[in-house]
Amino acid sequence: MILTITAFERSPDRGKGLARDMRVRWALEEAGQAYQVRLVSFEAMKAPAHLALHPFGQIPTYEEGDLVLFESAAIVFHIAERHAGLLPADADARARAITWMFAALNTVEPPILDLQTARFAEGDKPWSEQRLPLVKDRIRVRLRELSNRLGDADWLDGAFSAGDLMMVAVLLRLKPSGLLDEFPRLSAYVARGEARPAYQRAFAAQLAVFTAQSAGG
Amino acid sequence: MILTITAFERSPDRGKGLARDMRVRWALEEAGQAYQVRLVSFEAMKAPAHLALHPFGQIPTYEEGDLVLFESAAIVFHIAERHAGLLPADADARARAITWMFAALNTVEPPILDLQTARFAEGDKPWSEQRLPLVKDRIRVRLRELSNRLGDADWLDGAFSAGDLMMVAVLLRLKPSGLLDEFPRLSAYVARGEARPAYQRAFAAQLAVFTAQSAGG
Repeated sequence: MILTITAFERSPDRGKGLARDMRVRWALEEAGQAYQVRLVSFEAMKAPAHLALHPFGQIPTYEEGDLVLFESAAIVFHIAERHAGLLPADADARARAITWMFAALNTVEPPILDLQTARFAEGDKPWSEQRLPLVKDRIRVRLRELSNRLGDADWLDGAFSAGDLMMVAVLLRLKPSGLLDEFPRLSAYVARGEARPAYQRAFAAQLAVFTAQSAGG
Repeated sequence: MILTITAFERSPDRGKGLARDMRVRWALEEAGQAYQVRLVSFEAMKAPAHLALHPFGQIPTYEEGDLVLFESAAIVFHIAERHAGLLPADADARARAITWMFAALNTVEPPILDLQTARFAEGDKPWSEQRLPLVKDRIRVRLRELSNRLGDADWLDGAFSAGDLMMVAVLLRLKPSGLLDEFPRLSAYVARGEARPAYQRAFAAQLAVFTAQSAGG
């Protein structure tokens, strides 16, 4: 069964690994699953053929025979359920790992998405500069709470899981802002994620897309 | 096994059912599971005893014997995995239902949370009035896409699932804004959710907390 995911033809982050296909690539690498990638232009993303796969016209999507999934976390979870290494076997530990996936996406990421809105979508607005400190402070609240919970542990709940994968991927978006540096435990946590061989392979694969596109013109 | 969840002692929405314990109550009612509720004050939510249950100092939490979960979607998913009625038996349909859960939380809810930030956290800022239309337009983009996908179907993917429960709960937050009325298919979809007997029981239970508190002074 050939797995196919979609990714940006030209990623807005220029190969920094912050686009959401990276989360899926990383999970596939942790699971040792081969996959192929179909690149999609911004125009094609909003066209009917892609909207049939992804109702919100985004990447990534995931095709496995007749099954079509969208939403990176749902794809990561699908992979995690079918392969060892991303969810613990113990039922309670598994439920806690899933809890961290949801916490990453619904508690930690929303204020981080707001920072992107403040910087890019509203970067030219008159309130932009005044608003930025408020947005950053809301992120700091979450980072402080997360750092307190993590403490001196390597991962959020024992062994590395899909919960850590998702949390590290969400926190990585903060790298350009410098906010992560204010929380040394979280910086070290993210660095542990990035050091995983599966992360490295996934990062190289998405960077290769950017490099090839740049060379091609 | 007694299940215990936590909820606001005094919900900021004054019993409108928009607090996140409602999502868990609804899922428990769909699953036919009895539960007890421990009410938590805003002060207690940020104290060590509650932070041990919920690292971000919020409600709801879920206690089932030794298992402690937080994050409403994770709790809903935990319930859905263990009881009939919230996730389809077919593997592909199940994966799609889970996809809609994640889509509700990470694609549809973030711009809606931003509306709450704009209205409340930044309601007194000089940019508040000018910014509101931008925030609303970002929500409209998502609502249009969702409405297009839903079409004339009753639910997002065949039978009612935890994906619908989560999506309806997220969309309900828009009711006071009037935005939902611009999308008749979505208004009708939300109304179908609210009409479910399990929703009604959950709503009555959370309202009873507000009513009792108000009567008590």
